[in-house]
Amino acid sequence: MVILLMAGMHLINAQPSKFSTILYGVAYYHEYMPYERLDKDVQMMQEAGLSVVRLGESTWSLFEPEEGRFEFAWMDRIIDRMHKAGIKVILGTPTYSIPAWLALKHPEMFVERLNGTKSSYGIRQNFDITNPTYLFYAERIIRKMMEHYAKHPAIIGYQVDNETGTYGAANYDFFRGFIDYLKKKYKTTDTLNKLWGLNYWGMTLNDWDEFPSGQNATNPSYKLEWDMYGQKVVADYLTWQAEIVTEYKRPEQFITHCFMPSLTTLDQLAASRKLDMPSLNVYHGSQNNVRGEDVMWADDFYRSVKRNNHLITETNAQTTGWDSKGQYPPFDGQGRLFVYSHIAGGANMVEYWHWHSIHYGQETFWKGVLGHDLEPNRFYNEVSQVAHELQKLGPKLVNLKIKSRAAILYSRASDFGLSYMPFTERNAYMEVLRQMHRAAYRQNISIDFVLAENADFTGYDLLMVPPLYVASDALLKKISDFVNGGGHVIMSVKSGFCDENSVVRHIKAPGPLREACGFYYQEFSSASSLSLKDDPFKVGQDKNSARSWIEFIIPETAKPLAVYDDPFFSRFPAVTENRFGKGSLVYEGCLVSDEIQSEIVTRKAREIGLINKDNHIVYPVVVRQGINDQGKTIRYYLNYSDKDVSVVYNSIKGSDLFSNKALKKGDTITLKPWDVTIVEE
Amino acid sequence: MVILLMAGMHLINAQPSKFSTILYGVAYYHEYMPYERLDKDVQMMQEAGLSVVRLGESTWSLFEPEEGRFEFAWMDRIIDRMHKAGIKVILGTPTYSIPAWLALKHPEMFVERLNGTKSSYGIRQNFDITNPTYLFYAERIIRKMMEHYAKHPAIIGYQVDNETGTYGAANYDFFRGFIDYLKKKYKTTDTLNKLWGLNYWGMTLNDWDEFPSGQNATNPSYKLEWDMYGQKVVADYLTWQAEIVTEYKRPEQFITHCFMPSLTTLDQLAASRKLDMPSLNVYHGSQNNVRGEDVMWADDFYRSVKRNNHLITETNAQTTGWDSKGQYPPFDGQGRLFVYSHIAGGANMVEYWHWHSIHYGQETFWKGVLGHDLEPNRFYNEVSQVAHELQKLGPKLVNLKIKSRAAILYSRASDFGLSYMPFTERNAYMEVLRQMHRAAYRQNISIDFVLAENADFTGYDLLMVPPLYVASDALLKKISDFVNGGGHVIMSVKSGFCDENSVVRHIKAPGPLREACGFYYQEFSSASSLSLKDDPFKVGQDKNSARSWIEFIIPETAKPLAVYDDPFFSRFPAVTENRFGKGSLVYEGCLVSDEIQSEIVTRKAREIGLINKDNHIVYPVVVRQGINDQGKTIRYYLNYSDKDVSVVYNSIKGSDLFSNKALKKGDTITLKPWDVTIVEE
Amino acid sequence: MVILLMAGMHLINAQPSKFSTILYGVAYYHEYMPYERLDKDVQMMQEAGLSVVRLGESTWSLFEPEEGRFEFAWMDRIIDRMHKAGIKVILGTPTYSIPAWLALKHPEMFVERLNGTKSSYGIRQNFDITNPTYLFYAERIIRKMMEHYAKHPAIIGYQVDNETGTYGAANYDFFRGFIDYLKKKYKTTDTLNKLWGLNYWGMTLNDWDEFPSGQNATNPSYKLEWDMYGQKVVADYLTWQAEIVTEYKRPEQFITHCFMPSLTTLDQLAASRKLDMPSLNVYHGSQNNVRGEDVMWADDFYRSVKRNNHLITETNAQTTGWDSKGQYPPFDGQGRLFVYSHIAGGANMVEYWHWHSIHYGQETFWKGVLGHDLEPNRFYNEVSQVAHELQKLGPKLVNLKIKSRAAILYSRASDFGLSYMPFTERNAYMEVLRQMHRAAYRQNISIDFVLAENADFTGYDLLMVPPLYVASDALLKKISDFVNGGGHVIMSVKSGFCDENSVVRHIKAPGPLREACGFYYQEFSSASSLSLKDDPFKVGQDKNSARSWIEFIIPETAKPLAVYDDPFFSRFPAVTENRFGKGSLVYEGCLVSDEIQSEIVTRKAREIGLINKDNHIVYPVVVRQGINDQGKTIRYYLNYSDKDVSVVYNSIKGSDLFSNKALKKGDTITLKPWDVTIVEE
Repeated sequence: MVILLMAGMHLINAQPSKFSTILYGVAYYHEYMPYERLDKDVQMMQEAGLSVVRLGESTWSLFEPEEGRFEFAWMDRIIDRMHKAGIKVILGTPTYSIPAWLALKHPEMFVERLNGTKSSYGIRQNFDITNPTYLFYAERIIRKMMEHYAKHPAIIGYQVDNETGTYGAANYDFFRGFIDYLKKKYKTTDTLNKLWGLNYWGMTLNDWDEFPSGQNATNPSYKLEWDMYGQKVVADYLTWQAEIVTEYKRPEQFITHCFMPSLTTLDQLAASRKLDMPSLNVYHGSQNNVRGEDVMWADDFYRSVKRNNHLITETNAQTTGWDSKGQYPPFDGQGRLFVYSHIAGGANMVEYWHWHSIHYGQETFWKGVLGHDLEPNRFYNEVSQVAHELQKLGPKLVNLKIKSRAAILYSRASDFGLSYMPFTERNAYMEVLRQMHRAAYRQNISIDFVLAENADFTGYDLLMVPPLYVASDALLKKISDFVNGGGHVIMSVKSGFCDENSVVRHIKAPGPLREACGFYYQEFSSASSLSLKDDPFKVGQDKNSARSWIEFIIPETAKPLAVYDDPFFSRFPAVTENRFGKGSLVYEGCLVSDEIQSEIVTRKAREIGLINKDNHIVYPVVVRQGINDQGKTIRYYLNYSDKDVSVVYNSIKGSDLFSNKALKKGDTITLKPWDVTIVEE
Repeated sequence: MVILLMAGMHLINAQPSKFSTILYGVAYYHEYMPYERLDKDVQMMQEAGLSVVRLGESTWSLFEPEEGRFEFAWMDRIIDRMHKAGIKVILGTPTYSIPAWLALKHPEMFVERLNGTKSSYGIRQNFDITNPTYLFYAERIIRKMMEHYAKHPAIIGYQVDNETGTYGAANYDFFRGFIDYLKKKYKTTDTLNKLWGLNYWGMTLNDWDEFPSGQNATNPSYKLEWDMYGQKVVADYLTWQAEIVTEYKRPEQFITHCFMPSLTTLDQLAASRKLDMPSLNVYHGSQNNVRGEDVMWADDFYRSVKRNNHLITETNAQTTGWDSKGQYPPFDGQGRLFVYSHIAGGANMVEYWHWHSIHYGQETFWKGVLGHDLEPNRFYNEVSQVAHELQKLGPKLVNLKIKSRAAILYSRASDFGLSYMPFTERNAYMEVLRQMHRAAYRQNISIDFVLAENADFTGYDLLMVPPLYVASDALLKKISDFVNGGGHVIMSVKSGFCDENSVVRHIKAPGPLREACGFYYQEFSSASSLSLKDDPFKVGQDKNSARSWIEFIIPETAKPLAVYDDPFFSRFPAVTENRFGKGSLVYEGCLVSDEIQSEIVTRKAREIGLINKDNHIVYPVVVRQGINDQGKTIRYYLNYSDKDVSVVYNSIKGSDLFSNKALKKGDTITLKPWDVTIVEE
Repeated sequence: MVILLMAGMHLINAQPSKFSTILYGVAYYHEYMPYERLDKDVQMMQEAGLSVVRLGESTWSLFEPEEGRFEFAWMDRIIDRMHKAGIKVILGTPTYSIPAWLALKHPEMFVERLNGTKSSYGIRQNFDITNPTYLFYAERIIRKMMEHYAKHPAIIGYQVDNETGTYGAANYDFFRGFIDYLKKKYKTTDTLNKLWGLNYWGMTLNDWDEFPSGQNATNPSYKLEWDMYGQKVVADYLTWQAEIVTEYKRPEQFITHCFMPSLTTLDQLAASRKLDMPSLNVYHGSQNNVRGEDVMWADDFYRSVKRNNHLITETNAQTTGWDSKGQYPPFDGQGRLFVYSHIAGGANMVEYWHWHSIHYGQETFWKGVLGHDLEPNRFYNEVSQVAHELQKLGPKLVNLKIKSRAAILYSRASDFGLSYMPFTERNAYMEVLRQMHRAAYRQNISIDFVLAENADFTGYDLLMVPPLYVASDALLKKISDFVNGGGHVIMSVKSGFCDENSVVRHIKAPGPLREACGFYYQEFSSASSLSLKDDPFKVGQDKNSARSWIEFIIPETAKPLAVYDDPFFSRFPAVTENRFGKGSLVYEGCLVSDEIQSEIVTRKAREIGLINKDNHIVYPVVVRQGINDQGKTIRYYLNYSDKDVSVVYNSIKGSDLFSNKALKKGDTITLKPWDVTIVEE
């Protein structure tokens, strides 16, 4: 207890985003309990060693049980009890699930979708977040809550709303908002006629009143603006909430929002304008389906959004699922492995969703740390072990600074644009992005993400570019300049094809990238699968395959790295490399197998010194590192396998933080299945 | 003719549900004939030897061609002609398909579904059966018909409505009825808030006007009540019809309704309150897809509803299907085999759907005894053979009393509850129920069903329990008491998990069953397939598999019968047996293969003397038996295979009712493909 | 240039449907170009040697940018420029895509579908073509255009509307039109009650106001009339447009419409009443998916509609697709192969869709002759080669008269009728039709189509009949008479089963065909797959299969050609042949494999002298022939393979039109992959 309370007292510094130790806890819903057990729960949390809870984001109907009647006593009691136990509180604004009385009175706020269907009561996140009536009531409950709670010493920060999106809203007011946005951006429909090519099928617009609803929209430029407007709406909404909260909060309290890995739900940059740091709700495979890459890319992404540390507000406790078809409680040690993986990825907090398994409702089988019997169990015991480790090590692990020399470009416009004109059964954008990340991740190359909205490649040596289907000339020039100035690029198909309106460029592909790429193409073909001649990447017959898309590349200055093994397609290179200025650009004119992608990334990384030849550790041992507040390098060795593994320690002298044993270069680190070693140099 | 008329005269006793012989016939739709052929049809029926027809259930528009104008002459003529031929009539109330004039005048009675779509004219069973306007017109036509027909000597009974359900109605008045039902049951929404856990996602209700429509309902307790209300509505509707009919009918006439094998359409017990016996519309595979179990379980179920004999109102004639993709006329003998199977299962009547194949409409390819050419054919000839056999044997076969020592518990609440939170791709409830029945059926163990609403295990030695996911403490106590008192139980996964509101119990699973089961568990896992160590049921490598669901059983007093062959899961037993009081409980902590289920049932049945070791006959020869009105044991040997088979006769002296040959213990009974032997002891 | 202009001057004769040379060109959408390049485009067309463009069918919003304001100057400029270059113009009425101002003002014209959903703006072909408001505006723009353009010397013909259908309209006025049509045809609902069997499910109608919408219609007769009414509506609409255009056009100008291969979109005969010839929009597989049969059957069909030559208004340029999942640019030579295939099939024009690849909108990846870079490319070069060949050879190839001795009967009523009562997963009607065509096509047997609405078998020796499920007595008698008079028929399952209302005949099947077929049947069965005993067609074990449907044929005068290899089904023949009168009828009582169909067709064709035994050329070399304007036989040898092939020239002396070399009987013709030789005898 003494340790905990001390840690608690120093938990937050003057900077809201800078923590004094790693926070470890749960979302806690006392209001869902089948019987009174606040004392029991807090006691069990204390015994386990937890330091933080998230409260309140689903409780509007309890805070305001009837219109205009506010009740806080029930929550005061919970927060006071947490405070007494030294457990810190993150309080959510309760706006993502409206009370029944509000639904009854204002059904006009329910989402009406493009296909004409409407939402109704019985589920959360079912309203139009631009509806002014909703906003009126939401603002009132937020202000009332903040007035009441801002001074409470247990509260270290606020979460605004929860996993916000537009929920598919296309209500009348939402649509009018879209037109206002277009008017502001394009002024006249003549501009749209021209930029969006509305002569096509004779759909020219004389004036804004002719602007059609998106229900049957086929124009990709229309679709892109509609989706971008959705991104903006969500960002504006979260900013609006954050600004209200800011009026009340203490300076040292932080504001966050819990984002999801689905990147097209909202614009992470714009939505984070008024946040101290983003939080992430991320779930992963379990048992034999544990690979780490499912969460690591998201850690890397959200750490990159504000280029600081982030929080994990939700991740798997025992099992997940909205039914019981996919219940996979972790094997022993897997839960612990993921905690340290998140921290190694830059997280300052890991919170489970959630403390206890709910006995009612949709998420009965999305189990918590406690099962339905509310008693200690196998997972609770593992949590307890980790919590006690973190009580000791937290201050050394927190605020990890991670420096990456390689980055992946994320273009949400391309992600959207390709989804309207997909070249694979499912949109391949994220598939290639994840493949590129996986290639680096498994080679233990540290990766940042650069968002196209804010593209700055300074400080990176290697840039990986998933299909950059939609891009302005300016963005393409940045890439070209990056190469020219000595950067190295690995780029996938379709890059440079469309302008920022998702309109195809009317010059030879890849348009403004032609010089940097060192080739052009006029034709392309779908393809199921083609081998590459002579297995140029030495990946073996099964893996030596291009698929889905073949660009008919005509090299100008580029050199082929691979050609197709096919009577017709052999005239075109599959992969090229172009030296341009001081840098290089490797272009993949097709989708490649994971193994080829890995080989392309590894070769380039080795060439430019991102990985060493000697004692290079690769997946399933994941090595991540950063600098802690004391300026020390902290290095994680994470065993993502069900076997014992040994690796050679290859750095300057350090110590194993769990065992306190000294380590020197050449020593062997042995890891049990799903085990972790942390070394401080 | 003489025989027929004599049989006809004695067909019905003072007790409406007690018959003097087996009835055998068809549904007959003279009104669908492309030309006048009443005489021809009746003559063909007489020549075949049929004794009963079902008439009138689809004819509202003919009885009442315009609002308030009633015409019966067309039907009088048909019934008179039947009477003249000694063919008995079951008359249907014509309420399941409304006339066009009624649809035109009152479109508000069309079903509006939860998803917002509406039904319209052109199909049957498309209206809200709680709509008062519908009920007004339906009552009038029933009364008019009954006034006109109740005295007709040919009529032996009535069928009220036809395969009734709610048809997915969620109309405004239907929904208001639901709320009235909730108010009566729960009084206040506060009770709902508590019992259903409406704090979850902040969906607490202040009052009934806030009670939301089910369109987007996610709460399992809500869904269960909604579905249970549907069950009640249908039962009340059929009771209402039966009460009207009772006002007019002669005492010896019976009332029935034709149920379907789909058990969640309505509450069979409640719907039968005012029925003399249930009828069953049941269809089966044909040709190489004949197995008997598809209909036998339904015979067993509906015989159990009122613990008396039941009727078959519809079963396959030549072929079935709403298109012609699945036309499978039976091989020679298969039709006859099913008739005797139903009788062996307790049926007092077998009627085909239907006499002739229709030339128009949706069911053109749901063929009758006659094909579209309306001439004798292969199937007609087989029907004729059976009819003449039944003319002779009917009085010995009718009113069979079947005594079973084993039963299967049917819990519709569990069937529903699991469907909201399925643990397999499709709800596994019926899958396990059918698997348990199959295991017994193939061992020729006679099975009754016990319905959870009315659970009484008196007289049974063995109770099989499919996943009893939703159950009150009282029901669980009955099971526990049954074991304690000397009963034997075989029980599947998830039993005892939720209370009667589909709310998970907040104690260790299996809750109140823990003592009887002799174990507890805190965790469970989905699983594709796992082998059991050392093939404990000796079913061979391919069949030795658990799948879908693994409960992490911690035995207390139970003994493992099988453990998983897996590094992680081997710490938990897969199947346990617990001696509790004077009885035993075998628990399956996973779904098991058919072969393992069979072995579990067979071992227990042998242990408790349900089957003998010697000369035990198993599937594909199905043996069924009962006591007839004369107190004699009637035993059926049904060959469910396309091969000649021989079995040893193993009972006291008897005679083969077809050949009249005497049989003594040790004699051989030889059966041709799809053949039947009936022995009277 | 000189050649082109001369050709242009003589392009059209006094007869609008008689051309002086083959036309070769593109659909051209200058209005979609991202920048001004009319001169550049026309220059590139001229250099390539193109002779025709199609203009204007998607341009209502440009011709009438605001209600009542008409602008033609922008198009005048294009047509004038074409004229200057000697390129002929086909002008489309722009009515298939309405302007935004019209959509805004009259949303009532948007399609409302049977399922209740509505269309809206953003896509073409989204309105009810019977809506009078739409017709008012459509008529006005057509008249304005015709007034303005009819005299322009460049215009050789008009296309009315574009790929017209009902688009699923079931709007109120459309439905009232349907009732008016029924009233006219059937007079009273009593007639419907009787003919459609509305007693079924008690759906009898007292009067027309009770006639229900088709939303939930289940009655096959209802569905058939609904679909037939749709066919009529489209035909009436195109006739109405053609009549308006006729008021203005010059006598030598033709009128056409572009039909699609989907035969149930409209009634091709009725729709062509006022057309000079049909045009065809037909697309085909590419690369390794080139087979020729995909387009050849459509050429054969549309050539048969008016028994004259037809046009190709659209076919693949580089690639097709509404996304980029199926981009398959042709291998070298494939484009050229298809041009000569169409001409060999009777086409007088081949136009690509389209000149340039569009940078905006839904069809971005439906690429034209030019790619998005608008520069010459591989496909443009191949087009140029063909164009220059046609400049030389066109006058010899045009107006080819093709005489076929074999025909396939197309019954749209059967195609529809089977779709309501399918016997395979997808409606098998077109599958069998295409299989029969394929069998003949691959044997180089020339095929016409005969449409059931206008059945005349005069001049044919062999008639192939796909499942003739719906047919009047009169049509069946024509077939019977054809056989009796010496014709030969190959007929598939279900023929003769239903009358013209899709009502099953109430006599033994195949009804009125019984005598010609020489058998009857009472039963039928679905079946997955059955072998035929002793491989009677010598197709090898894998191919020796019947499937899907088995009719229990009882031969009377017919002789079995094959029986099933099955214990039960062997009592019925699978394929029979009946000599009847002077002819014969081969009946397939099941669906057969492609190879068996081929063998059945080939044997009969050989028997009646449609193919010779010696030097018979078969697929992949396709041989097609006809008589040109000079009375010379023109014979095409089309190599549908990626290999060099040689065939023996087997006719009277001729010359190779490409090389001008003389050919005599016995000479070898060698064809490179995808190559063509044309011989003039």
